[in-house]
Amino acid sequence: MSEKMFTDPSVPRGERFDGWGFTDSGLDIDSTGAKLIGSRYEMSGKRLPYLLNWANGVLGTDLVLQPEFQSQGLTPINAAREMGSFIQALGSIAWSQDETARRRHGHGHALEEVYAIRHGRLLRVPDMIVYPISEAEVQSIVQLGKDHKVLLVPFGGGSNVSHALACPEHDPRAIVSVDMRRMNQILELDTENRVAHVQAGIIGSELQLELEKRGYTLGHEPDSNEFSTLGGWIATRSSGMKKNRYGNIEDLVLDLRMITTQGLIQGKAMPRESMGTDPRTLAFGSEGNFGIITSARVKIFKLPEVQQFDSVLFHDFASGYQFMKELAKYPPYPASARLMDNFQFQFGQALKPETTGWKLQKSKIERAIVTGPLGFKPDSMCACTLLYEGSRAEVAAQSARIGQLAKQFNGFRAGGENGKRGYQLTFAIAYIRDFLMRFGIMAESFETSVSWSELPSMCEAVKQRILSEHKRLGLPGNVIISWRVTQLYHSGAAVYFYLGTLVTGVKNPAEQFATLEHAARETILEHGGSISHHHGVGKLRAGFVKDVKSSAGLAWIEGAKQHLDPDNIFGIGNQ
Amino acid sequence: MSEKMFTDPSVPRGERFDGWGFTDSGLDIDSTGAKLIGSRYEMSGKRLPYLLNWANGVLGTDLVLQPEFQSQGLTPINAAREMGSFIQALGSIAWSQDETARRRHGHGHALEEVYAIRHGRLLRVPDMIVYPISEAEVQSIVQLGKDHKVLLVPFGGGSNVSHALACPEHDPRAIVSVDMRRMNQILELDTENRVAHVQAGIIGSELQLELEKRGYTLGHEPDSNEFSTLGGWIATRSSGMKKNRYGNIEDLVLDLRMITTQGLIQGKAMPRESMGTDPRTLAFGSEGNFGIITSARVKIFKLPEVQQFDSVLFHDFASGYQFMKELAKYPPYPASARLMDNFQFQFGQALKPETTGWKLQKSKIERAIVTGPLGFKPDSMCACTLLYEGSRAEVAAQSARIGQLAKQFNGFRAGGENGKRGYQLTFAIAYIRDFLMRFGIMAESFETSVSWSELPSMCEAVKQRILSEHKRLGLPGNVIISWRVTQLYHSGAAVYFYLGTLVTGVKNPAEQFATLEHAARETILEHGGSISHHHGVGKLRAGFVKDVKSSAGLAWIEGAKQHLDPDNIFGIGNQ
Repeated sequence: MSEKMFTDPSVPRGERFDGWGFTDSGLDIDSTGAKLIGSRYEMSGKRLPYLLNWANGVLGTDLVLQPEFQSQGLTPINAAREMGSFIQALGSIAWSQDETARRRHGHGHALEEVYAIRHGRLLRVPDMIVYPISEAEVQSIVQLGKDHKVLLVPFGGGSNVSHALACPEHDPRAIVSVDMRRMNQILELDTENRVAHVQAGIIGSELQLELEKRGYTLGHEPDSNEFSTLGGWIATRSSGMKKNRYGNIEDLVLDLRMITTQGLIQGKAMPRESMGTDPRTLAFGSEGNFGIITSARVKIFKLPEVQQFDSVLFHDFASGYQFMKELAKYPPYPASARLMDNFQFQFGQALKPETTGWKLQKSKIERAIVTGPLGFKPDSMCACTLLYEGSRAEVAAQSARIGQLAKQFNGFRAGGENGKRGYQLTFAIAYIRDFLMRFGIMAESFETSVSWSELPSMCEAVKQRILSEHKRLGLPGNVIISWRVTQLYHSGAAVYFYLGTLVTGVKNPAEQFATLEHAARETILEHGGSISHHHGVGKLRAGFVKDVKSSAGLAWIEGAKQHLDPDNIFGIGNQ
Repeated sequence: MSEKMFTDPSVPRGERFDGWGFTDSGLDIDSTGAKLIGSRYEMSGKRLPYLLNWANGVLGTDLVLQPEFQSQGLTPINAAREMGSFIQALGSIAWSQDETARRRHGHGHALEEVYAIRHGRLLRVPDMIVYPISEAEVQSIVQLGKDHKVLLVPFGGGSNVSHALACPEHDPRAIVSVDMRRMNQILELDTENRVAHVQAGIIGSELQLELEKRGYTLGHEPDSNEFSTLGGWIATRSSGMKKNRYGNIEDLVLDLRMITTQGLIQGKAMPRESMGTDPRTLAFGSEGNFGIITSARVKIFKLPEVQQFDSVLFHDFASGYQFMKELAKYPPYPASARLMDNFQFQFGQALKPETTGWKLQKSKIERAIVTGPLGFKPDSMCACTLLYEGSRAEVAAQSARIGQLAKQFNGFRAGGENGKRGYQLTFAIAYIRDFLMRFGIMAESFETSVSWSELPSMCEAVKQRILSEHKRLGLPGNVIISWRVTQLYHSGAAVYFYLGTLVTGVKNPAEQFATLEHAARETILEHGGSISHHHGVGKLRAGFVKDVKSSAGLAWIEGAKQHLDPDNIFGIGNQ
């Protein structure tokens, strides 16, 4: 028995416990305005002089730091149960009952959860965490879970936004979180077949770095890449920004290993096979309900010969939408193509760091040309950021296609620098939400997928619904609802919404915000959108599942669950 | 109650009941040699003067029509049970107890099955067939199956080669085949989102024709395209010759509907979604075990602007293999790329129709150049047939890539005509196997998928194993084992083997042949190959399943089966 509690990997990694991101980064404010502290990101260390003014304008009120929205220490949590006999049985398997670690393992990064750890309360968090370092340890833990009748919760990066880690409040059993982040090794790198066997607890950016050192990439780059893990990607059906080139997680995983209470589910890493019903499909979207994914064999790709950013401005969202729809029709596709609406375009402008001298002049001139002779209107124009990857010839072909399509839809190619900024903003932007909360603003992103034909009307309907719901709830200021089109598909696309509102003086602000978001999801489903494109269901969207899965389908899942986990050891209760 | 037996769709379609294909086509022989009769295929009506001579040479004996291998009428079958009350309950649903139709619904097109219907016996065939025309009728049939405790067998095109339709001999229940071919309508054609909602009983070539009329294609072209159905493709995880461009069936199907004994499993046709475990995945590879697929929403593509054939000759298989491996690394990919070994290259030459005049001279000159100054050796050279599809720019890019790679691996581009012949031979070649049986030759194709690194050694090991097994069994003449590399994947490829041997004077020839094929499969698995790339498991390969699925995985499938079909109504017993 190990007597000392293990230090949670979030600590040496420098992760925040009070919100998204790393402690060395984040937005701060002083008398001169906002600034991204630290040195981790491209825009780190730079002042953002336009942000607050712009936010004042769009929210229809002057932003003021709200005393009741400043962090006053993290919310207390339920006392840990006495786990002596379980700890004894763990032997040399690392564990912790540290309060900060326990809190961290009881939530993801949904807005309501971040609010809860700062100002509300988490109904329940795990009683302890175990930190296996091998598949054998995971097998022992699952066996112990059965023997000791505890509830096991697989934990990857804890970056979900679906309340997937919210613990069942009234389950009489002790809850043990199984943190997989120590299982972060590349077990095998088969460069001839371009397959890597990787432990499931590896974090995206770690894997990226390790593969890059060897000249390879997985090509999977979700927004959460600095925190989410390979196992988490599989369990939530993750999607990355470069999916047009590399595919989504189900396209990238050739084989996986999942420990269930009935043993190991595994296959062989085949290029493609027809061998009847494939038990491995159960792992995709499993969200912790069936077992613990320990490793996967994934495709790897040689680092691209060329990587080139680009951007195209459009006169309005409708033109940009037509451009995206046409682009999706046949290859070559850019690795990434993301179309922002006018609000997000303006937001991107507001996030520009302070510039001086020639750069400022250049930027002013560009702006003058675009809005002058080229006739782009600041309050209707929008932008598409692009990334080309591949051989020299491929990148040339991708770029040529964009050139031709941009022309067809009266777009203006605004160059690589703007494209790169747009792409990299993704990682910094995640800090903004938690920063805005200090001003009494609640904001959240949520996504869906929808057919091309329904996309524009769905977005417009969501906007109308949010406007009327915001009014009905009597929330202060202007509500913000904005979207971008991200991953492209044959028959439709993924759409990412931003929703933001002031909640100063509002009672139960997180609940009010949840009501708004729920209304948006209702409208999304009414207009043919999906429950989720890649965030998953968790508990946040569980109420919608019966609308999209037939009762026989649900009964089958229930049957699989009963069979694979008759005692509901994996009782986190998602979906 | 309908009093008249319904005429099986195979009759108006002109399908053979004694082997593969249509009655208007097939190989025949007279004193001047072999000939493909009819007018259905490009090579129809043409004499094949080189075929028999060549076959004599490779088999090491002079081929003679064997009296005991000539068709003497089809094998008798078990008497149909009295189904009066079931027929009564069917109401207006069409049905048949015709003997020929019953026999046809009790087998696929595996070599042993064709031998059985001609010279051996089928252990059991269905007692009757029902022919639903709507999803409502399928629902009624499933309900009647439960009420009357009969065994239901979904039937698509009956073109499987996995013994999937072989009926359980000792099951005490009546067996009812559910022939889906009347459900062949395109229910909806959504050209904006490029999705068609199609009934599952539609035959590949029917769907192709109907879509082509409207300017579209599914892009799915399996070798069985003239007989197999959409539902059958899903149930067996089918793959087509143009998968490099359009994907496999699981890539093409966005949604499907499957009637189980517990109700309908369905979803919504989303571009891509993350909604937890997806019950629809159960249908892929279901092989008739879980329910009846009634319709699917599939991707459709505008007919390509350009379609262009090509071919490349290589000095040896090793060079061709390197070419394929390199080609798989990044786009653009040709829609189809198939690499034949030297035997199949020679076979293709032997299948050339008679030519005269300038065409003969041209062919002689070409041959002289290739084997003369270019130094290709007839007994080691091999060929890759290619098909480019897409916009003008795409086809140019595909062709340019092939040009560059052909150069890299010392290939010689042998032009579009040879490529087209090779591609279209696929449909005619299927007739040859049944023709050869009349000479006492048994031949079969079987496929696998394997990693790039193992591909050459697996093929060589299969060859050695077949040679030694052929000797051990004491079979006459030379055994033929040959392969081609068909679909390309990131980490490997599909490999198609041809196996042929004389069985004149051999006792239980079909069993002896099955022993040979089983030995090949053992060696395939030993060398990392899959049970099947796209034929499926059925009963032929069921013995290998425990080697590739872990016990927890198998237990899960068993659990799903128990839950969805507790009375084993779908009791065909595949996998």
